[in-house]
Amino acid sequence: MPKRFAVSQISRLAHRAGGSAAANRMVPEETPVAFSFAGTTHAVMMASPADFEDFALGFSLAEGIIADGREIEAIEVEDHGAGIDIQIRLKDQANTRFEARRRRLAGPVGCGLCGIESIEEAMRSVEAVGSSRLTLDSDDIVRSVRLLSKAQPLHAETGAVHAAGFYIPGKGIVMAREDVGRHNALDKLAGALAKAGIDGSLGAVVVTSRVSVEMVQKTAAIGAAFIIAVSAPTALAIRTAGDAGMTLVALVRGDDFDIFTHPERVASGVAKHVA
Amino acid sequence: MPKRFAVSQISRLAHRAGGSAAANRMVPEETPVAFSFAGTTHAVMMASPADFEDFALGFSLAEGIIADGREIEAIEVEDHGAGIDIQIRLKDQANTRFEARRRRLAGPVGCGLCGIESIEEAMRSVEAVGSSRLTLDSDDIVRSVRLLSKAQPLHAETGAVHAAGFYIPGKGIVMAREDVGRHNALDKLAGALAKAGIDGSLGAVVVTSRVSVEMVQKTAAIGAAFIIAVSAPTALAIRTAGDAGMTLVALVRGDDFDIFTHPERVASGVAKHVA
Repeated sequence: MPKRFAVSQISRLAHRAGGSAAANRMVPEETPVAFSFAGTTHAVMMASPADFEDFALGFSLAEGIIADGREIEAIEVEDHGAGIDIQIRLKDQANTRFEARRRRLAGPVGCGLCGIESIEEAMRSVEAVGSSRLTLDSDDIVRSVRLLSKAQPLHAETGAVHAAGFYIPGKGIVMAREDVGRHNALDKLAGALAKAGIDGSLGAVVVTSRVSVEMVQKTAAIGAAFIIAVSAPTALAIRTAGDAGMTLVALVRGDDFDIFTHPERVASGVAKHVA
Repeated sequence: MPKRFAVSQISRLAHRAGGSAAANRMVPEETPVAFSFAGTTHAVMMASPADFEDFALGFSLAEGIIADGREIEAIEVEDHGAGIDIQIRLKDQANTRFEARRRRLAGPVGCGLCGIESIEEAMRSVEAVGSSRLTLDSDDIVRSVRLLSKAQPLHAETGAVHAAGFYIPGKGIVMAREDVGRHNALDKLAGALAKAGIDGSLGAVVVTSRVSVEMVQKTAAIGAAFIIAVSAPTALAIRTAGDAGMTLVALVRGDDFDIFTHPERVASGVAKHVA
């Protein structure tokens, strides 16, 4: 497969107070990535062309297609120029389960689901992470975001790429992945953690973006009891995290941050000051 | 249908230098919205629960399901609590075309497309907008972003919602829509413009977000020759805009901005200063 680059240098006209000039700038690449199971496509994502195997593994886990990375027989990455096709071969039992699910969903035309079923599929219940005993203090939270910002080489070049990292107290950011899409970055992180055999309950997912309900669903699939975000959450993300027993911390700006759910897991120097 | 609100007030623990306190904050709502054609679901989007008819019309246009709003017989919005199902009934000819397309795509299992076909579908060719004679000067560009920022009531409340607006020289932002998703905001704008009978070639699409290739595809479907964005574009968005004859201006910050494609459409005070 030819080498793909996640950033490209382009020339643009920079209009500034002193006049305009042509100048180079690094911008992120973006490529269609198709995930094919049992020979046909399950989904196509627009993504940064990097970390394809992490992406395939993390997507398969987050979508509930597999429960464990060992259910994958092989991942083949094919570059077709216009995009990347990732062929994922599941082992017998997982493949049988997947095809049964797909037959159930696929009618003679369309996806075969009515609107109500599709909404239920989108709102699928989230695994509870309330049994995690992990606690973080305010220094951990502030440090996790600061350390993630140092693990973003694509963003440093382009200023336009999201990142998802995994923070373990005392160890820092042990894994990070970047992508033009925030959901993709989190899927890639999930795959990288699974491949490295890192237990998701040991740490916190840290993201540079806003928190939608899908980010909470993916964090729960990783098994992490914390999601820490630079930007704001949606109301649905807050309700879903609350129900799942997950601590959602967002709007981390310098030393300030907001705790939206389950503050009991944030120790010392916070809970005791509650008005 | 019960009234839906696009924002909700929640209580969170604000951790600041001086201590922590519970305090209220407005956050955006996020709801699954299913688009159903001919009785089964075509897509489910996580979106702000507002402007559903604009969303349905704009999505149908942007996806090429219809060529014209008059091909829609009826739009019915059903609130199922967990989400919104929008049933879109197409007129005879459009319905026949849609069902034929769907039969072609839908195999006995899955979507029936192989990876290469799916990639081609994602990269579908973009309508050229090069015949547009619209030019803007640097004041228009700076003003379009400043005026859009005043047409964002949800963002003013939450600080966490994207907007897409339509700028016509001499008239300002004539239409704007907001959504938690930047693609949704642009679909809603497309629908609102079509409903109001506003010719897309008369103005510029202005967005608060980054520019991915899908934003360029949707802008071309609107027929606009300009996309102006607050944040950065991807390399694929730049190539696609370039091929379509579209002027892509991004990174508009105060009076500064970058022109990535077709600068010949930006008049006076820019081109003459090119180094």
